[in-house]
Amino acid sequence: MDLHNQGRQKFIEFPFVSAPHRDLMVNLLSTVEDRLGSHLLPCTLPLDVQHCQNESGSAQASLHIRSGLQSSQVDFILGSWLHCKLPTGGALNITSLSAYLNPSTDAPNFMIELIQSSPTSLVFILDLPPRKDPVLSPDYLQTFYENTQLDTHRQMLAKLPEVQPYVSSSLYLRSVLSPTVVMIQIGAQAGGPERMEEIVKNHIDPTAQEVLGIWLDHCARGERLVGEEEKAYMMKRDELIKKKTIEIDLGTNFPRLFGPEVTDRVLGAIQKVYNI
Amino acid sequence: MDLHNQGRQKFIEFPFVSAPHRDLMVNLLSTVEDRLGSHLLPCTLPLDVQHCQNESGSAQASLHIRSGLQSSQVDFILGSWLHCKLPTGGALNITSLSAYLNPSTDAPNFMIELIQSSPTSLVFILDLPPRKDPVLSPDYLQTFYENTQLDTHRQMLAKLPEVQPYVSSSLYLRSVLSPTVVMIQIGAQAGGPERMEEIVKNHIDPTAQEVLGIWLDHCARGERLVGEEEKAYMMKRDELIKKKTIEIDLGTNFPRLFGPEVTDRVLGAIQKVYNI
Repeated sequence: MDLHNQGRQKFIEFPFVSAPHRDLMVNLLSTVEDRLGSHLLPCTLPLDVQHCQNESGSAQASLHIRSGLQSSQVDFILGSWLHCKLPTGGALNITSLSAYLNPSTDAPNFMIELIQSSPTSLVFILDLPPRKDPVLSPDYLQTFYENTQLDTHRQMLAKLPEVQPYVSSSLYLRSVLSPTVVMIQIGAQAGGPERMEEIVKNHIDPTAQEVLGIWLDHCARGERLVGEEEKAYMMKRDELIKKKTIEIDLGTNFPRLFGPEVTDRVLGAIQKVYNI
Repeated sequence: MDLHNQGRQKFIEFPFVSAPHRDLMVNLLSTVEDRLGSHLLPCTLPLDVQHCQNESGSAQASLHIRSGLQSSQVDFILGSWLHCKLPTGGALNITSLSAYLNPSTDAPNFMIELIQSSPTSLVFILDLPPRKDPVLSPDYLQTFYENTQLDTHRQMLAKLPEVQPYVSSSLYLRSVLSPTVVMIQIGAQAGGPERMEEIVKNHIDPTAQEVLGIWLDHCARGERLVGEEEKAYMMKRDELIKKKTIEIDLGTNFPRLFGPEVTDRVLGAIQKVYNI
């Protein structure tokens, strides 16, 4: 089996999360691959980057990245999961899927992240992060966020009694996200793990599918090309976001969990794909 | 009495809000005038713009604007209150104070707004809105938002049991605000109007004073000058924000409450000060 299929197989196992959580992630990846597949190269990350674990096996991570073809407007798609045992006896599980467009278009990117710190506690982030300053571009807000009624999804989830807003400790991440970002903390202590699975299946999953659908229909179709001058701006902004996102995602937890050698290997591989 | 003093007198009456709410607004204005007074021109708005009301007297508004001297970095400060009787028998009271810097510096602006729709229900917005895209300027976030520990104020208020996050219906306004914005809804139905006054006095007031202090110490001192190229960018962004803010603030309620003639008069006067 080749690098791509071997790594993908391992990635889509999502071995440590509940069935509805796994179904959500696998379905999102399949939808993206079905719609964008012809624009994507296979994953060529070394196997020891596609999957890694620490010596004791208490921490594991899987990474799946597919770059876009030169001719496409997709920069790359990136899926990941991270599992680590917590000193308290539980485990932390983070799963994510992002899709980045390249500087030939200014259409928003796509991102979803689920951070599960116990079977009854989940942070959920879902967004189409804007690729230019919305303050300077009210028409951009209108096109991608108002006309698509993205905010209704945020509003619907906010009505669930288990939902509280979540505020990231990173001011940079808060700045990168759109004004319609879904950024919530779900506490299902009262209803137990079954209620959490129900929320993921009946609320998180359909919302994620719909927002991905909006992204595929309105952003990823490559209908919005930018001129040369703006392209330089897009390159600068995209690059900075990618740099800062690695810092935030890998900077704190990864070295602590996997040690410097694995961290350097993974970081190097990502930087190569990110072209930075 | 001259235009400035006559209008100011009327403005600082804040005749329809509770004593702690009035004290808060008057103290903030005094602090700004004490610290920036030598940089500010008197208010020269016509009296029928500084104060206006509709025919039945069910709606009143007061506006106090002082432009900065040519030599200063203050563009203008703007205070306002709006009162209108609601069909339900209650009243809506909105009070605000903003301070805008001019394009010679890129330091953040200051804004506070209290929207009181009943004696036990208050929306509170407090921020130093950034003047450049924070995504492209991580050092800007560091300087004005991280180093000043602005987020601690948001965190403190969020701990009060009466506090819920507030989300503006305007995506543009959400985009203009900083990642440390205080944007909350306070519901004191259980404790009654006395509890609301207590919250304003003991929590809202000191927070507002502290954040204003940070702005005066770190932003309004004019230590951060920008070059010519960046100045053009600042002008463009500042102007767009001012235009959109008028649209949001005056566009919906003002014509309905005061009719087209008063609206045009007030709008014209503001546009003159805004230089747009």
